Amino acid sequence: MDQFCFGVDLGGTTVKIGLFTVDGMLQEKWEIPTRTENQGAAILSDIAASIQNKVDVRHLTKEQVTGIGIGVPGPVLNENRVQGCVNLGWGNVCVADELSALTGMKVKAANDANVAALGEQWQGGGKGYQNIVMFTLGTGVGGGIIQNGQIVSGANGAAGEIGHMVITEPENVVGTCGCGHQGCLEQIASATGIVNLAKRQLTECDEASILRQYAPLTAKDVLDAAKAGDALACRVAEQMMQALGRAAAYIACVMNPDVFVIGGGVSRAGEYLTEGIRRYYQQYAFHASAETPFVLASLGNDAGMTGAAGMVCNF
Amino acid sequence: MDQFCFGVDLGGTTVKIGLFTVDGMLQEKWEIPTRTENQGAAILSDIAASIQNKVDVRHLTKEQVTGIGIGVPGPVLNENRVQGCVNLGWGNVCVADELSALTGMKVKAANDANVAALGEQWQGGGKGYQNIVMFTLGTGVGGGIIQNGQIVSGANGAAGEIGHMVITEPENVVGTCGCGHQGCLEQIASATGIVNLAKRQLTECDEASILRQYAPLTAKDVLDAAKAGDALACRVAEQMMQALGRAAAYIACVMNPDVFVIGGGVSRAGEYLTEGIRRYYQQYAFHASAETPFVLASLGNDAGMTGAAGMVCNF
Repeated sequence: MDQFCFGVDLGGTTVKIGLFTVDGMLQEKWEIPTRTENQGAAILSDIAASIQNKVDVRHLTKEQVTGIGIGVPGPVLNENRVQGCVNLGWGNVCVADELSALTGMKVKAANDANVAALGEQWQGGGKGYQNIVMFTLGTGVGGGIIQNGQIVSGANGAAGEIGHMVITEPENVVGTCGCGHQGCLEQIASATGIVNLAKRQLTECDEASILRQYAPLTAKDVLDAAKAGDALACRVAEQMMQALGRAAAYIACVMNPDVFVIGGGVSRAGEYLTEGIRRYYQQYAFHASAETPFVLASLGNDAGMTGAAGMVCNF
Repeated sequence: MDQFCFGVDLGGTTVKIGLFTVDGMLQEKWEIPTRTENQGAAILSDIAASIQNKVDVRHLTKEQVTGIGIGVPGPVLNENRVQGCVNLGWGNVCVADELSALTGMKVKAANDANVAALGEQWQGGGKGYQNIVMFTLGTGVGGGIIQNGQIVSGANGAAGEIGHMVITEPENVVGTCGCGHQGCLEQIASATGIVNLAKRQLTECDEASILRQYAPLTAKDVLDAAKAGDALACRVAEQMMQALGRAAAYIACVMNPDVFVIGGGVSRAGEYLTEGIRRYYQQYAFHASAETPFVLASLGNDAGMTGAAGMVCNF
């Protein structure tokens, strides 16, 4: 009899839910809205009802379901408790305990960036490796550290917050990061950071650039222009890849992972990006770890629910 | 009946050996010379003979000894194999397998900086914490990462090589690091680096400084002068503490450890140093992990043998 587990990726707008076999095969996925009103009081009961419905429809027995993993947009302590998720309206919530009480199933919770990294390690770009570091290059820069196939969450749930490495001096970035610092990796390597840096270049010089024709300008425009050889766009892309390569070299001096996995919307730039990061990484890396590979994430928006399921596949 | 384990700290000049109870109490310690002639062919048999002698003298039964842990001055793969230790004359040596064959005991091997970190986590400054990062500030800058009470060695045995984070630009350091880069943490925060930076200041300006009276100048002279308020020495010490604080902030964005432990000869500067590092750490750290404590290592030269024993106390 097959064994199943549920993976839940709880976002600020929708909840993505997947039913997986315990060896990681996705059977079915669906979404429900995230109801953030009333301090998000209905979120966990909505998820519980949706999962119970799927159990009923598929005639699954309790014994067939090993448990539920859930990724949450905030720091999670002890695979259970969040101390505030602004996007959900939550204050202090014991996510795993509450969802377990509602479903009668075992539940583990973790930060959403961390479960996405676990998903990529389990079934995605990092499959086959036990120790990976994932960079998620989206609106911000997130990260996830997987050590021996397990999420590293850290003393304050802040492990993998690699977007907030203060990687450069304030004059090399635009404005202040959401965290309060100036010079964070996120200010250079996120979609927002790329656009900000390109706009500054466009304002500060009158050099010809195909970027001048875009309004609004996106990170994809900048990276496409860089690939096409636009000199201004290339400078922005090189600054970004240098910052990522340098950060990866720092990370390697700490963890020396088997592989770096690059995901998030910005990673659609593909091998141009991974090769560029690797070029700078090798400039800064300690010789023993200079050959660490860089690969692209492969699960896209399914990484979160996949990793969430992966947390509980061995219950 | 008490259970015992042996901890071995294999250095280029001497081998330090300790007999411990499996709960970490040091019963006895002694040293033998490291015979590096003939590509270090006698090293492991000398260690085996010394341990066997101790077993005989104390009338220990095989059942009473859980095993031997050994720290080696080079990268160690799979708790067994080194691929070259210049200081020992070794090429490729399966340390754990060979010492196990010689003694009939279970053996685990690890890098010496890593076992020192494990020693401090098990019985030293980091006791009571499961996740620590240790900085060893000596002739060079070493490090060790302990996650869930276990050494993190990394894909290439290069985890914890935090001395080789390229933390600054080449113009802020003197010369080239042993690893080939310019700007490594080791070039600023090691005893050698401190002296080099102070000498450059003394040469480049004619500012009065009590450091001008020392020949040869040592890192201790520099840090003592800084504590006494010597302006030139203070600049060198601040540069060092800033680099360490910044590196610790990077590390926290990766691992978010419970505590940072500062050891090595330079750490005899005491709380002046830990407080200085912490001051800069807080400038650069992500807010969630800004309160991570910095403590001094407490085992001194016994850290290596202690951590080596700690590796095998649960065999």
